[in-house]
Amino acid sequence: MVVENSFTVHPFGYHGTFIHAASVGELEIIEQGLLVVDAAGRIALLEKDILPSNIKDTLATNGFSTSTPVQVLARGQFLIPGLIDTHNHAPQWTQRGTGRGRLIMDWLNTVTFPHEARFADPEYARNTYASCVDGFIRQGVTTASYYGSLHGEATKILAETCLEKGQRALVGKCNMNRNAPDFYKDASAAESLQVTEDFIAHVRKIDPTSRLVTPILTPRFAISCDAEVLSGLGDIAAKNPDLPIQTHFDEATQEMQITKELFPEFENEADLYEHFGLLNNRSILAHCIYVGEYEMGRLKALDCGVAHCPVSNTTGGEFGMAPMREYIRRGIKVSLGTDSGGGYSSSIIDAMRQAFVVSTARETLSGGKDPSLSIAECFFMATLGGAQVCGLDDKIGNFVVGKEFDALEIHTVGQNSGIITPVEDVDQLPDLFEKFIMSGDERNIVKVYVRGRSIKS
Amino acid sequence: MVVENSFTVHPFGYHGTFIHAASVGELEIIEQGLLVVDAAGRIALLEKDILPSNIKDTLATNGFSTSTPVQVLARGQFLIPGLIDTHNHAPQWTQRGTGRGRLIMDWLNTVTFPHEARFADPEYARNTYASCVDGFIRQGVTTASYYGSLHGEATKILAETCLEKGQRALVGKCNMNRNAPDFYKDASAAESLQVTEDFIAHVRKIDPTSRLVTPILTPRFAISCDAEVLSGLGDIAAKNPDLPIQTHFDEATQEMQITKELFPEFENEADLYEHFGLLNNRSILAHCIYVGEYEMGRLKALDCGVAHCPVSNTTGGEFGMAPMREYIRRGIKVSLGTDSGGGYSSSIIDAMRQAFVVSTARETLSGGKDPSLSIAECFFMATLGGAQVCGLDDKIGNFVVGKEFDALEIHTVGQNSGIITPVEDVDQLPDLFEKFIMSGDERNIVKVYVRGRSIKS
Repeated sequence: MVVENSFTVHPFGYHGTFIHAASVGELEIIEQGLLVVDAAGRIALLEKDILPSNIKDTLATNGFSTSTPVQVLARGQFLIPGLIDTHNHAPQWTQRGTGRGRLIMDWLNTVTFPHEARFADPEYARNTYASCVDGFIRQGVTTASYYGSLHGEATKILAETCLEKGQRALVGKCNMNRNAPDFYKDASAAESLQVTEDFIAHVRKIDPTSRLVTPILTPRFAISCDAEVLSGLGDIAAKNPDLPIQTHFDEATQEMQITKELFPEFENEADLYEHFGLLNNRSILAHCIYVGEYEMGRLKALDCGVAHCPVSNTTGGEFGMAPMREYIRRGIKVSLGTDSGGGYSSSIIDAMRQAFVVSTARETLSGGKDPSLSIAECFFMATLGGAQVCGLDDKIGNFVVGKEFDALEIHTVGQNSGIITPVEDVDQLPDLFEKFIMSGDERNIVKVYVRGRSIKS
Repeated sequence: MVVENSFTVHPFGYHGTFIHAASVGELEIIEQGLLVVDAAGRIALLEKDILPSNIKDTLATNGFSTSTPVQVLARGQFLIPGLIDTHNHAPQWTQRGTGRGRLIMDWLNTVTFPHEARFADPEYARNTYASCVDGFIRQGVTTASYYGSLHGEATKILAETCLEKGQRALVGKCNMNRNAPDFYKDASAAESLQVTEDFIAHVRKIDPTSRLVTPILTPRFAISCDAEVLSGLGDIAAKNPDLPIQTHFDEATQEMQITKELFPEFENEADLYEHFGLLNNRSILAHCIYVGEYEMGRLKALDCGVAHCPVSNTTGGEFGMAPMREYIRRGIKVSLGTDSGGGYSSSIIDAMRQAFVVSTARETLSGGKDPSLSIAECFFMATLGGAQVCGLDDKIGNFVVGKEFDALEIHTVGQNSGIITPVEDVDQLPDLFEKFIMSGDERNIVKVYVRGRSIKS
């Protein structure tokens, strides 16, 4: 289905402003930069302070053909790394905007499970996942960590859709064999695990070296997985040390209470998931709101990643304020998720903005002890932080020679009569960037690249 | 400049679904409705449960020409009343998206005052206000309560722009004769008041009966107005009992401390503004975050209106949670403001969503004592509540025979590949409406009417 050739591109370049995260608090704005992408879709050259008149000389000096096409970005235009959504329920794409204000179990049973059950129909899955993946690409999501539905076939379709459309993705068959309605529940622990292994084998077949798509182990959460499923998934994780793992973690008061009742032998969720072999440096833990001192220590020691989902955390039945400042202080890996469709928005730009809101709440409520997040920190979480959490920071996340070119071309000027990014002549680069982050949307995203390929239609 | 004829329209009708607020918690969904707008732009007929085949009969029975053009709305399309933005700084239109995380006085001095000072240039004012008013109209704001800059001429241009473009507006010259930089401060109390009176006279000349534009008294806040300005404005208010009044009220800890230092003779801001004759049933009080029991009582007794601005309240230097549930409980008038550009968004739809967020925070932090706002309550604040706060609920706010037709035609289906309002065949009307409120934007707003005139270009 996939042939090697489809992953080669004609080398090309960009000249102008590139903005990326060097580290968690460090935003780097490269002006007059020259970046060249090679045939493998990798960043082969990145030079700063090159005058437009020196582009050809610089290409030649560095061994590139002087006929390499180089797009020169104008004022108000810049490149940023592709956005990374580390927590995304693909089958909830079309339920976004409903279910506001419900507590988690009510929301699952009333809104979500009936909706996800529709993915038993492969035709429905194919159409909806095509819209979903297109929608996220248009919004600049170059890498997504997707929960599928529980269905093997639909989840294979999701993986194939990402591959066809050129989006980088972690894709998981969702495991859930209890505390769900009969019409939407794995038939048994054995079947849940068997469908998972079959799904992994399929993805390894369609993308053998995980150039774009990687299978991810996806126990929905401990409430919906019995010990047999959890320990079976732990075994699969042990046998496949390249596989990432994702689940929901310390998300809501109600969820934590029920988990405690189901697994009274564990003091907390960290111990629970660690016991089953599911907590390690490959774990993407969504939400992480009520994480105490002991669990913080485990997350740090085990090098787990946090997927912060501020949109869903603040519009469900409970206002959740994940302690992002404390995670950053301790060097715990941090990233952002849309949590679409628990979150009403499918935009990582919205997630950045709502992360500011939640961090402002924590600052005020902590009397200033936990300062709110900066633009640089939120942008880091949406890019390099996301890559770290997904275990992909050797490949993507910022503009470093040797990494693959996952990038967005942003235009801030002349967009939509000033409703989004109302730019003025006097604005400097930091103003333009802040306006994009705080008031922009996908209409500012003119091109989307994954591995050097332009994929926004 | 304005002639009577420009306010007449050719009578027309709509058939289909109309959604509006009957009262604060009561959302009315009218299906198979027939609404007719007369030549004066008023709602002349509103009938429910009319089959499309009975449109002509119903027109005839009610005395309308059977050749009246009637637009039949399809599935996924509906009318809602125009959105009302009760707190909006027009000269901050292009600074949106900057200044995040700053405390109020720093934000004013660093970001806002230098920006507003540019409106000394009428040419700049003309261009920027054209973009601003167009931008709000495109987002469905049929009525805005605008703070202008301190400049008389620029503020006249703002009023003229609203009139030309057909937007209903309260427009105020901003009074501020102290605690502001020399380059952006009224020259004296006398000059501040004189420019105000001259501005009021100008608006009365261009729109004598306030068909669209009404002048509004606009002391920025007590920090920037000395007692002479405040009492002078109180005198103008007393002499002009039709004029509304707007100011900022109990907005931020820092602001309240400085106000107390400047006016030690008053225990609180309610007493302060009441003393100067500025607190009554025409007062639009922005923010109202830290309002205690005594002030609550005064707001209720004096019938003041609250302009809740949840976007700016949660992204500035302090997380402010206005007690909207308590205002609603007490029957205090409530509405929504974008607070553009203290708020990064110029959308009242975003303001509704952020109002949910803030109310969810209050629910959680109050242990459930203050339940979060419902869709119906937020929609009320954005429409009928806004009309009440602006003193215009006899004219606009919902679909009632005799009121003027300020309305939006909303299309939820087929918008932008499902990024906004991801509608499915199975969705019922309440789902479509919730998806619009929670995930829609101005791309769902196909037509905008004020007084029966279609004004979205």
